[in-house]
Amino acid sequence: MPDMIKMALCQPAVVDNKAENLHKAAEMVRRAAKSGCQIAVLPEMFNCPYQSELFPSYAESFPNGETIRLLARLAKEENIVIVGGSIPEKDGERVYNTSFIFAENGELIGRHRKLHLFDVDIKAGTVFKESDTLTAGNDITVVTACGVKLGIGICYDIRFIELAREMTDRGAQVLIYPAAFGLVTGPAHWELLMKARAIDNQVFVIGAAPARTLGAKYQAYGHSIAVDPWGRIVAEADETESLLTIVLDLKTIASVREELPILKHRRPKIYHN
Amino acid sequence: MPDMIKMALCQPAVVDNKAENLHKAAEMVRRAAKSGCQIAVLPEMFNCPYQSELFPSYAESFPNGETIRLLARLAKEENIVIVGGSIPEKDGERVYNTSFIFAENGELIGRHRKLHLFDVDIKAGTVFKESDTLTAGNDITVVTACGVKLGIGICYDIRFIELAREMTDRGAQVLIYPAAFGLVTGPAHWELLMKARAIDNQVFVIGAAPARTLGAKYQAYGHSIAVDPWGRIVAEADETESLLTIVLDLKTIASVREELPILKHRRPKIYHN
Repeated sequence: MPDMIKMALCQPAVVDNKAENLHKAAEMVRRAAKSGCQIAVLPEMFNCPYQSELFPSYAESFPNGETIRLLARLAKEENIVIVGGSIPEKDGERVYNTSFIFAENGELIGRHRKLHLFDVDIKAGTVFKESDTLTAGNDITVVTACGVKLGIGICYDIRFIELAREMTDRGAQVLIYPAAFGLVTGPAHWELLMKARAIDNQVFVIGAAPARTLGAKYQAYGHSIAVDPWGRIVAEADETESLLTIVLDLKTIASVREELPILKHRRPKIYHN
Repeated sequence: MPDMIKMALCQPAVVDNKAENLHKAAEMVRRAAKSGCQIAVLPEMFNCPYQSELFPSYAESFPNGETIRLLARLAKEENIVIVGGSIPEKDGERVYNTSFIFAENGELIGRHRKLHLFDVDIKAGTVFKESDTLTAGNDITVVTACGVKLGIGICYDIRFIELAREMTDRGAQVLIYPAAFGLVTGPAHWELLMKARAIDNQVFVIGAAPARTLGAKYQAYGHSIAVDPWGRIVAEADETESLLTIVLDLKTIASVREELPILKHRRPKIYHN
């Protein structure tokens, strides 16, 4: 395991035009590589507006979908790991909210299909039903890239403590959540959830969000963020389009776990008896 | 279940004199009852300074220990439920960090022995080893008082997501953590942990702390707090001696769970396969 890793959180404003979205994402990934980042992370639905009814028409299949081929080629050309946020993925009759992860040689090393579909009805203003058009995945995803174990969840997946715990128990050192929180849950819970998963599991936690797109039907909260295992914010964007470059000191994981040995102090026989 | 419940969080400054500590606690519980509270909560080790080497000499046995008898009598006299923070409890050769809970008729309705002993070595300044003198409990504690289900954990117990989840699954609506965070973990994690347990489990969370005692070997952070199921702070004390009176609107639990059905959306077969 390396001591340090340099990552970029790409926060593009997503529009209702796939070509434009891909152009923007590619430009950000190239910029990340040029500034020496080893991993670039894109946000949830970076090629498609976050609207259930648009997911099927934007969906692509592996391996020949346009977005998927672009990410594979970019990873290889720029010699950078890409955690491909998520896109609508078509597989047979079904559409998933899927993150494709490519190694720096362009090979697919992971595919996370969102496990928890966002079906909510918040009176303050967020009503969403992903299950109208999407199917949930069935697998937990932990991959190794640049010698670091990355656990991948998508947006609403972060609300489930069991998933983060299981990824941690499988060795994940950095939990990465491509996400698209809105203007109700964003201010209320975004930072809190990132910090909570970090201190409870003593891992780094990354949230990669799209920028706010004025006029879009679903307004994203932005605020891409990285939190360390002690719950300190390493860096956080505002709501505008931006490329956030961060350096994670991975030694912090071991030092925090030595100081406060939560994971060792667990008493599993008592919780599940 | 009632719609509303009125509680008092008692935040006394604890000194190295049991009689003084009991006098202060009793005065606060009586004041809570007079202001119409149905439940009074005391902090961790409210009758004893938070120092491992003092726990054995302050320890008492059920039912005849001085503190235990006082709490039972107070509950009955004042017609108030008492979540008796915690005290060192002697049982045979062993000493536990125990919370005794009394109904408003003075009967014992629960006894929580701290499940996770605080054995930590934080370089910024907190070194503690409860296991030098204490033994850990083996049981999860959820009791019904005033028609409300209360889950009880003690201080370091709050760091364990599995415990809060299990108490929630057993029906707890309010998680109560008598605690004594210090000046390192307090500013870093106190509020965050309370809010995290609240939004992840969609319950109310209460932290009841002692006030800071100037000159004491272990400086408590204070900041007794109540958080609602959306993660909003209902009330929070500062570090000084105080009695915090709060009203919990229990209907919030159902409304938040309806808006954002996290507990229903869990996928247990995938987490533990």
